Amino acid sequence: MKHQKPPAAESTQVRLARRTPTYWRVTFDHPPLNILGSEAIVQMSEIITALEADERVKVVVFDSAVEGFFLNHSDFLARLEDVTSLPPGPTGLQAWPDILVRLTRAPVVSITLIRGRATGNGSEIALASDMCFASREKAILSQWEVGVGLVPGGGPMARLPRLIGRGRALEVLLGADDIRGDLAELYGYVNRSLPDADLDGFVDALATRIASFDKRAIIDIKRLVDAANLPHDVEIGAGWDAFLASIVRPAAQERIKTFIQRGFHKPGDVENRLGHYLGQLGR
Amino acid sequence: MKHQKPPAAESTQVRLARRTPTYWRVTFDHPPLNILGSEAIVQMSEIITALEADERVKVVVFDSAVEGFFLNHSDFLARLEDVTSLPPGPTGLQAWPDILVRLTRAPVVSITLIRGRATGNGSEIALASDMCFASREKAILSQWEVGVGLVPGGGPMARLPRLIGRGRALEVLLGADDIRGDLAELYGYVNRSLPDADLDGFVDALATRIASFDKRAIIDIKRLVDAANLPHDVEIGAGWDAFLASIVRPAAQERIKTFIQRGFHKPGDVENRLGHYLGQLGR
Amino acid sequence: MKHQKPPAAESTQVRLARRTPTYWRVTFDHPPLNILGSEAIVQMSEIITALEADERVKVVVFDSAVEGFFLNHSDFLARLEDVTSLPPGPTGLQAWPDILVRLTRAPVVSITLIRGRATGNGSEIALASDMCFASREKAILSQWEVGVGLVPGGGPMARLPRLIGRGRALEVLLGADDIRGDLAELYGYVNRSLPDADLDGFVDALATRIASFDKRAIIDIKRLVDAANLPHDVEIGAGWDAFLASIVRPAAQERIKTFIQRGFHKPGDVENRLGHYLGQLGR
Repeated sequence: MKHQKPPAAESTQVRLARRTPTYWRVTFDHPPLNILGSEAIVQMSEIITALEADERVKVVVFDSAVEGFFLNHSDFLARLEDVTSLPPGPTGLQAWPDILVRLTRAPVVSITLIRGRATGNGSEIALASDMCFASREKAILSQWEVGVGLVPGGGPMARLPRLIGRGRALEVLLGADDIRGDLAELYGYVNRSLPDADLDGFVDALATRIASFDKRAIIDIKRLVDAANLPHDVEIGAGWDAFLASIVRPAAQERIKTFIQRGFHKPGDVENRLGHYLGQLGR
Repeated sequence: MKHQKPPAAESTQVRLARRTPTYWRVTFDHPPLNILGSEAIVQMSEIITALEADERVKVVVFDSAVEGFFLNHSDFLARLEDVTSLPPGPTGLQAWPDILVRLTRAPVVSITLIRGRATGNGSEIALASDMCFASREKAILSQWEVGVGLVPGGGPMARLPRLIGRGRALEVLLGADDIRGDLAELYGYVNRSLPDADLDGFVDALATRIASFDKRAIIDIKRLVDAANLPHDVEIGAGWDAFLASIVRPAAQERIKTFIQRGFHKPGDVENRLGHYLGQLGR
Repeated sequence: MKHQKPPAAESTQVRLARRTPTYWRVTFDHPPLNILGSEAIVQMSEIITALEADERVKVVVFDSAVEGFFLNHSDFLARLEDVTSLPPGPTGLQAWPDILVRLTRAPVVSITLIRGRATGNGSEIALASDMCFASREKAILSQWEVGVGLVPGGGPMARLPRLIGRGRALEVLLGADDIRGDLAELYGYVNRSLPDADLDGFVDALATRIASFDKRAIIDIKRLVDAANLPHDVEIGAGWDAFLASIVRPAAQERIKTFIQRGFHKPGDVENRLGHYLGQLGR
C-alpha cells in the first residue's frame, strides 16, 4: 500500500448477465490479472443487493473472463483507504466481508466456477458461495497471505476448518501454497474438480437444473443448512480486523514491497507461480 | 397426498432378526419399491424401543431384502395424516424424526448397509446411523425432495453439513440428483463404498468385531463422540416443520401429481433414474 | 496395570533438537516399541513449556527414531499411579491431556510425521497437532482402546468427529482397527499420505517454508482457526475421566491381562498387527 497510482476511470470489472430471470451469471473481468480493487468491491456490493432483492432469481454462477485468473488478490498499488473508506454494509461489517457474508446468506444458490487462479479474494468468494467446482487442470486455489506477513481478511479462518477440518485448513492457510484441482477436491476445498473440457457444461447443467426447482423450497433448505454451522458475523469481523492490523505492520509492508520488486502485481512468473515465490521471500 | 388407497392389511415391512444376543439385523422388506409408509414407521419405532431397552445388544445392521431399493421415499398415495397422526415419540418429535434421533443416541452401534436406492428416508436412516457402507456399483443415495418442491423432513439439513461440509451438503440437497457409491465415498456421505461382492462380508465382519467388544466402553465412546457435534433435537424438529409446511403448498402438490402421472411411485424408469426425471419436471 | 517393574533409570525418550532457532524437531526414541510411559510424559511436558516460552520458534516437527513405531500405547506394565500422580498442568487437566491441549494452542505450528504405528497416544498426538503427514506404505493409525475395554483418554472422541465427521470417527473409535495411509488420507485423519521415500523431504520443505514466514501472522491465523471449532478443555477432560473410569473396570483389566499373555507389550506379531489380534480377544 506504499505505492499509489492515479484513480482509474470507472469501468465494469464485475459483469452481471441475466441469462434467464431465474439464472444469473457474474463474471470477473479485470484483465490482465483480475486483481480486486475498490471499484470491483462496489460493483460486487451492488450485485449482491440485486440478488437479495430480486424475487425470481434462484441461481447465480460466478466465473471469470480473464485467462489464467478467476479472481486474484487485492490491489496493493492502491491506497488501503480506497477499500477501508467504503461505507460499511448492512451487516455492519466493512465492504468486503459484508459482501461475503451476505452472499452466503442470500436467498439464491451461488455456484463458483474456478478456472485459473483463485488467490486470496478468489478463494474467499469460493468459500462464501454455496458450491464450488474447479477445473482439474487449470484451477489453483491459494490463501497466500501469510507469505507476505498478512492475515487473510475475507473469512477463510472461519470457513475453512468447518469445511475441510482443522489440519487441512491450517495447511492451506499457513503453507500459503498453490492448491491445484486434484488436491482441492481431495481436501473438500471445492465440491469437485472436473476435466476442464467438462466444467462449463457441468456447472451450466446444474445451475439450469436448480433454476427449475421451487424457490421457496430452495430457500428453506439453504436456511436450515446454515443453521447447522455457519460462522457468526462476529467471527468474520475478527478475521477482517486481524487483516487490518497485519497490513500496517512493518514486517508485512517490507515483504510486500520486496515482492512487488520481484514481479508481484505484474503479469509474469511471480503471479503465475505465486506459491513458489512466496517460499523464497523470507529466506 | 391427493391420492388415496385402501388401508393395507398389516404386514411386516421391517423385519428384525437377532443373529446373536449382541448382534441384530433389521431388514427393510416392502417390495417392489421399499416405499416407507406409516406401517413401517410404527414397526421401526418398536425396533428402536427394543434396541434401547435390551441390555445385551451391541450392534445393529440395517439392510434391505428388496432388489434395487435399500429404503425409498415416503408413500405419496397414502394420506399425510397416516403419518402425522401417529403419536409423538419420547423425544416429543413426531414419529419419523423421533425414530431418527433416537437411533443416533441409542446405546448400540448402528451400521447401514446400502445396496440399491437410498432415497429420502433411506438417506436419512444412513445419516442417522453411526456408520454407513455402500455398494460401489449398486448404491444410490439421494435427497430428492427439492425436485418436487419439498423440504426433506428427516434431518439431512442438520446432519449433512456437519458430515460432509456446507458446500457438498448444499449440492446434495439442492441438486437433488442421484449420488453413486464413488461420489458418496469421496464426499464422506458414506464411510466407504466397497465392491458389491465384498460388501456383505465386510459389514458382517465389522459388526461381529464390534459385538465382541465391551458394551460399556462402546457406549461411553459413542456418548463422548456425540458431545462433539450432534445437532440438537430442536434443529431436527425445525426441519420436520419445514417439510410439513412444504407438502401442503400448491407448488409441491402440483409437482408431485405430475410426477406420479409420469411414472413416479410405480416400478420402472422414473423410480430407477429418479434424479434424471426430477431434472425434467420443472421445465 | 497389574504388573510392575522396577523404575527404569532416567533416560531421554523424547529428544528435542533445535535445527534452527525457528524450526525444532521432537523425536520419540524409546525402543523397541515406543511405548509411552510417565517419563516420556514428563519430557513432553517440558518440551511443550519450551515451545510456549520461546519467542523465535515457529515450527516443530514430531517424528520417531524407532523402526516401525511412531508412538505407541501407554505402558500397561507400569502402575497407573505413575501417570495419574503427575501434577496437573497449567490447564488444570492431568498431565497427558494437558500436554495435548497445550500443543494444540501453542503459538507454534506443529507437524506430525507418521512412519510406523501411531497407536493410542501416537494417534492422539497427531490429532492434537496442527498438521499430520503419513507414510503411504508404513503409517498405521489406530485408536485401539475399545478392543481391550478402554475408552481413549487423550481426546479423540472430541477431535475426530470435528476432523473427519461422525460416521468415520465412530468407525475409527469403535472398530479399533489398523488404519493405513491410504484410508487415513481418504478419511482426512491425516492431511495427506505420501510415498515413504518422499515423506521426509516433503515435511522438511513445508516446515522450512513456514519457518520463513512472519511469526505474528502465523499466530493470529492459528488463533482465528481455533475460534472456529476447537473442543473446550472440559470436553477433553470428560474423555480423560472416562478413560480413568474404564481402566479400573474388571472387563478391561481381564482383557488387558489376557492380551499381555498373548504377546501384547512385547516386540512381535501382536504389536505389529494389533488390530487383527484385538478382533480375536473377545471371542
